[in-house]
Amino acid sequence: MTDAIPRTIEWVDPDHVRIIDQRRLPHDLVQVETGSVDELCELIRDLAVRGAPALGAAGAMGVALGATNGQPIEDAAEQMSAARPTAVNLAWGARRAAAAEDPVAEAQRIADDDVRINREIGAHGAELVPGGGRVLTICNAGSLACVGYGTALGVVRAAHETGRSPSVWVPETRPVLQGARLTAWELTQLGIPFQLVVDGRAAALMADGLVDLVVVGADRIAANGDVANKIGTYSLAVAAHHHGIPFYVAAPTSTIDPDTPDGRSIPIEQRAADEVRTFAGAPSSPADAPVDNAAFDVTPASLVTGVITEHGVQHPPFMASPS
Amino acid sequence: MTDAIPRTIEWVDPDHVRIIDQRRLPHDLVQVETGSVDELCELIRDLAVRGAPALGAAGAMGVALGATNGQPIEDAAEQMSAARPTAVNLAWGARRAAAAEDPVAEAQRIADDDVRINREIGAHGAELVPGGGRVLTICNAGSLACVGYGTALGVVRAAHETGRSPSVWVPETRPVLQGARLTAWELTQLGIPFQLVVDGRAAALMADGLVDLVVVGADRIAANGDVANKIGTYSLAVAAHHHGIPFYVAAPTSTIDPDTPDGRSIPIEQRAADEVRTFAGAPSSPADAPVDNAAFDVTPASLVTGVITEHGVQHPPFMASPS
Repeated sequence: MTDAIPRTIEWVDPDHVRIIDQRRLPHDLVQVETGSVDELCELIRDLAVRGAPALGAAGAMGVALGATNGQPIEDAAEQMSAARPTAVNLAWGARRAAAAEDPVAEAQRIADDDVRINREIGAHGAELVPGGGRVLTICNAGSLACVGYGTALGVVRAAHETGRSPSVWVPETRPVLQGARLTAWELTQLGIPFQLVVDGRAAALMADGLVDLVVVGADRIAANGDVANKIGTYSLAVAAHHHGIPFYVAAPTSTIDPDTPDGRSIPIEQRAADEVRTFAGAPSSPADAPVDNAAFDVTPASLVTGVITEHGVQHPPFMASPS
Repeated sequence: MTDAIPRTIEWVDPDHVRIIDQRRLPHDLVQVETGSVDELCELIRDLAVRGAPALGAAGAMGVALGATNGQPIEDAAEQMSAARPTAVNLAWGARRAAAAEDPVAEAQRIADDDVRINREIGAHGAELVPGGGRVLTICNAGSLACVGYGTALGVVRAAHETGRSPSVWVPETRPVLQGARLTAWELTQLGIPFQLVVDGRAAALMADGLVDLVVVGADRIAANGDVANKIGTYSLAVAAHHHGIPFYVAAPTSTIDPDTPDGRSIPIEQRAADEVRTFAGAPSSPADAPVDNAAFDVTPASLVTGVITEHGVQHPPFMASPS
């Protein structure tokens, strides 16, 4: 099957990484290349590449870049892991590449695995989508959040590919508008029907009987099943609970961190105030308005119907694998 | 007491209306004048003047303009009532001015009454705010939503003026950003501490223990106590209920419509798709993205702790007054 959307991140032999610059979407589909660990970290911090599974591959490819540049491997792994605090996949990917005999080959393996794993998540998740199912998501947990295919949107894609005719409610997802910019763009490319809404509309859609299930991605899942994801996710979970609507998290098992006991232990990134005060350089509030810009929130396990992984729908507690 | 903020709308003898052009805030505080009913309707549709209590005065002043222009009074009342569908105050003000012997004097009386009524709402509501109380609101139910002083923000102002030291969480309130543009500006003028957040942060603030009560305005309150207000209000009500946090609506009794039996009977305005597809004028999504842009939602009476009116905290059912 050919993909309508190129890989979010890929290795370019002998010593470069190529990424889709997501800051330019939905207006321009542009790829940028870098051979520098510093520059890759900067692209990550600036959200040119984002999404927990994509960051797993990015963490590994950063270490691979370090290795080809002669940077001490542990240095590179530490630098990559620190680029953003909440998504656990960044450190996971960096660690895997650092422990491998050939970091470059390992990074490429992680990238290939990601696409395969997401298709498996999609296959499991599609079974949960009723015919004509109306799926509410948030942010972008699509191809652009992964190396390819997508997690939450992978579930929608797999439902689409198997004739379930899903449609999607897309909250724009302030402040960085990943829903409006990325998810709306992806669904347009894929020919999957959707409607864009402001974030505040989600609960009212449920009250209006217009949502069959909620499927979101995850930046980190704690051992007890608490889920850190894009700010606004918790609000959807509370509303879904109030309306008796299933609330699923779609994520590869690499997003589960058995070393994080619960949601309180997940570091929540505070991003720059100007993300909230402005858009595309234009101020939208008084220039000195005090801002709280927590980029993620935590949804307690009690509000999560299940975690759709490559191994099927799973439930906490999540133990460390015996490896 | 002098006001830091001019009246949102006022009559200018002999035949003009002067309004603050809220499209220009927070960058410029500019007043515009018009002597034309058509033009006033256009200013209302374009949200240069908005907010249910302000629209009550605007409805009356439109009829007064019609009267001074020799337009048949019933025509003017009908035209003003139709400018926007959800807020009941527009028709209420138009009807009152149309029934008066002197529509101009009546419109000015409505405007003066509004400020007095809001101070009464504030006095009643302030008693509900604990010392150091952290109030979550939405949109702008402040001076700019009224002729002056404010309803939900009037409660905060009165709490501030009586030494309760409140602070305010201000959701930016997409798509038109009345929170970021107007509420943040008003609170800055008044010296009341606040923090701006994206709309998706509100429920997580409650989970974090950072909200003591929610106070919002209303565009229409049905006889059974269901409340139509800015899109996103329902989401706050569900989250407040989930967290056991009081959820108050602050509104003059003119916002209560005994002729509307319940929320299902309230017409919900769908506004232009480009309000959602763009942010402060810049495109934020694919240009042809399908959009649902319901401007309001309905919060059922069961989620409303009480309605703070000029007569105190009230509860449904709301009957027609015996007049």
